[in-house]
This record gives sequence, structure tokens and C-alpha cells, in this order.
Amino acid sequence: MLNNIRIVLINTSHPGNIGSVARAMKTMGLTRLYLVEPGEHPHPKAVEMASNAGDILDKAVVVNSFADATADCSLVVGTSARNRAIPWPIRSPRELAEAVAGMPSTQEIAIVFGRERTGLTNDELQCCHWHIQIPANPDYSSLNLAAAVQVIAYELRVACVDKPDVVAEWDYPPATAEDMERLFVHLQSVLIAIEFLKPSAPRKLMTRFRRLFYRAHPDVMEANMLRGMLTAIEETIKS
Amino acid sequence: MLNNIRIVLINTSHPGNIGSVARAMKTMGLTRLYLVEPGEHPHPKAVEMASNAGDILDKAVVVNSFADATADCSLVVGTSARNRAIPWPIRSPRELAEAVAGMPSTQEIAIVFGRERTGLTNDELQCCHWHIQIPANPDYSSLNLAAAVQVIAYELRVACVDKPDVVAEWDYPPATAEDMERLFVHLQSVLIAIEFLKPSAPRKLMTRFRRLFYRAHPDVMEANMLRGMLTAIEETIKS
Repeated sequence: MLNNIRIVLINTSHPGNIGSVARAMKTMGLTRLYLVEPGEHPHPKAVEMASNAGDILDKAVVVNSFADATADCSLVVGTSARNRAIPWPIRSPRELAEAVAGMPSTQEIAIVFGRERTGLTNDELQCCHWHIQIPANPDYSSLNLAAAVQVIAYELRVACVDKPDVVAEWDYPPATAEDMERLFVHLQSVLIAIEFLKPSAPRKLMTRFRRLFYRAHPDVMEANMLRGMLTAIEETIKS
Repeated sequence: MLNNIRIVLINTSHPGNIGSVARAMKTMGLTRLYLVEPGEHPHPKAVEMASNAGDILDKAVVVNSFADATADCSLVVGTSARNRAIPWPIRSPRELAEAVAGMPSTQEIAIVFGRERTGLTNDELQCCHWHIQIPANPDYSSLNLAAAVQVIAYELRVACVDKPDVVAEWDYPPATAEDMERLFVHLQSVLIAIEFLKPSAPRKLMTRFRRLFYRAHPDVMEANMLRGMLTAIEETIKS
């Protein structure tokens, strides 16, 4: 259990925080850490803060971008304290954990945590199926990075361990983050071709399409069907 | 809410841990900290780790014994990783939180955390109504003090203040069934025009589109956006 879940940290400044996150993960049985452009890694301070969870640090995967860390994942969720201009589906840590517990263990899942001070960017948040908000004191909601990971990892352990592996039946596997990005690139190009999206005045169109299709959580067949429709539009315009 | 709950730390060695506990408490809306014979208090390292939760440290009550910290409490619980020689009633953090949520707010409640390395003594554990065990990896159950406080404070907040189902605010009302049917009629007509859907061999295409868009549960703005895209396709084809 829990082996299909990765914790992704974006641009972590302080190596001590990476170590504390490794410890928090290991206490709850999570093992897979991805670091997107960490400030300093590896670093002795991280090893110190990891206590006996140095194995998590040793196995950590360092990548260059959000996309590299999540490309093969069929569920990508980002933690977010703030409400955004365009609302996005929000899940509590418990709702996330219960959803994850109901998914087949073959699905790769990424839980993404942002920078210590500034969190995730709007662009990053728009690559997520759901935003996770940890219930907190509205007057002081500043959980540190390891504390946020601890709470979510705890909920995942409670929901996933010792539960029977309930598999949601479906006809096709879910589209990956990479499939979704290809779809959005294709969609944008078609929207421009049909002059529905004007590059000079894009409004929030692509953001709204992203949110809509992430909510639908397409399977690979549905993603292919949408791509097929886009191709058919292109061919009809050309002919 | 939560004002009748005190966090009691016994013989904490490292002042930084006291500060981290203060921060963890404040993020979840707990305010009352009792310190039983702390190693060093007050201490600049505690203030540093408390971040903006210094008010919790300033108000902390320093006492000389477990008994002094808990004398007026009608529920005393102690955290314990180990199973003891004499079994004691055990509650999970969630069971504790749900029990506390059901108690009148006039009851004083103490949640006691032991020393960093050795936890609570058997004598101390035998002064508790219940022992609290945080679910953890059996091979590595070493949550640090602030992490343990964070998890329990989080459960208390969820049970006592926030309902787990976060109600997401949304910018537009959901599309009605009628809106959806209009969308599907329009979509089908465009799919035929671009020869993606062949009426003689429709496969399950419309069924798959219906399932996909129902899952997304579009709001009225998104339904209009999709209709607008379909209209733009039609106009591009005609021109």
C-alpha cells in the first residue's frame, strides 16, 4: 500500500525542510519523494532533520519541472491555502485520502507541495485535478512544509492501510498528466484556428477548459476521442 | 471552540521543540500550552521556531508536575507509542477528537505528550483516562513532538470546528439538465459536420461524450463556453 503515491516538493529553499518531510513521510509509510529544482540537495542539514529516514532522501528523484515530476500520474493534487480567482475543485485531506483508498494501486498519484513562502503558482495549480486545503485556523494557517506533509500522510495511512483494496471498475485507465497536457496544447491550437481563442485577448479561456477537463478526469479512450475530434476539426477546416 | 483543551509537554529538552509545538497548536486554533519542568524556557530558539505563534509561548503555564498540569481536568489523555505491560484503554486521534467534540465545553481536557526520547513514564500513563496512539509505520513510528501535536490538533480541529466536507465556493451555478441536452444536441450536429461522428456507424461516441461531460458537471459559464466553441467551429467551416 501507499507505494503508488509520490510526494512532490517544488523549489524547496531550506534543505532542513526536505529532511523533515522525509521523516514525516516515513512515519506514515510513504517512501517516494520527488524534488523539483531543490535549493540544495543533497545537504547535511537534510540528513540531520530526516533522523532515521535518510533512505527516503537517498532515493529521492530530482527533476527539473512540475511536468517531469507528474507526467505519468493519473491523479495530480496540489496543496493550496489561498482561494484563487477561478475556483477549482477542493478536497480536504480526508476526502483526498478516501478517494485514493478507492483507486487501484496501479494508478500513479502525485501530491504536490509548493515553495515555503509562496506555495504553488497559478500555472502549477492549473495542472492539478484537485486542490487540497488543510483545515486550519483562519487567523494563522501557516503550517510548515513538514507539518502539512505530516497531516496529509497521516490521513493517507488511516484511509489506505488495512483497508481492502477496493478497485473502482472502469473500462480504460485514466489519462496521465502528459496525456492531458498534449490535449490542452492541441485544444488551444484548434481554438485559435477557429478564432474562438484570440491570442491577443485570451481571457481565462484555457484556464476554464483546463478546470473543466480536469474535473471530468478523462480516461485514455476519452482523451483520444477528444484529440480525434480536434483532428477532425483541423481536417475539415483545411479541406 | 477548543478553548477547554490544553496541550501538556513533559520535561521537553529542546526549546526549539516547544516553539514548533506552539506553531502546530496555533495553526489548528489551540491556544493553551502547559510546560512541566521544561529544559529551558523561555528561550530564543523557541521563539524562532514558533514563527508567529509567540503569543502561545508567552501565555504558556510552567508547572512542576504532571499533577499540577492536570489537576482540574476531567479528561486526561497521554500519547504513547508503545504497548504497556498492563493494557490501558487506547483511542486513536480520531476517536479522541470525536469524543472531545461531544463533550460540554465546560470540561477541561488535557492532552499530554512525553519526553522527546523516552515519552511518558508508566506512572504518568497510569494517570490518564486513555492512551492515544497515532497510526504510524510499525518500522518507523518516530514522529517528532511537534508532528505528533500537529496530527492530534488537526483531528481536534476537524472534529470540533471544521466539517471534513469542505464546501468549495464556485463562481457560476451548475448547468441544468436542459442546458446539458442543448449542449449534446449541438455537439452531435458539429461532430457530424466534421465527419467525426458517422450517423451510419455512431459507435458509442455520444454516450462517451455524455458520460465525460456529466462527470465534469459543467457550470453555466462552462456550458456556454462549450456551446461558443461549437458555434465557432460551425462558422469556420461555413466561411
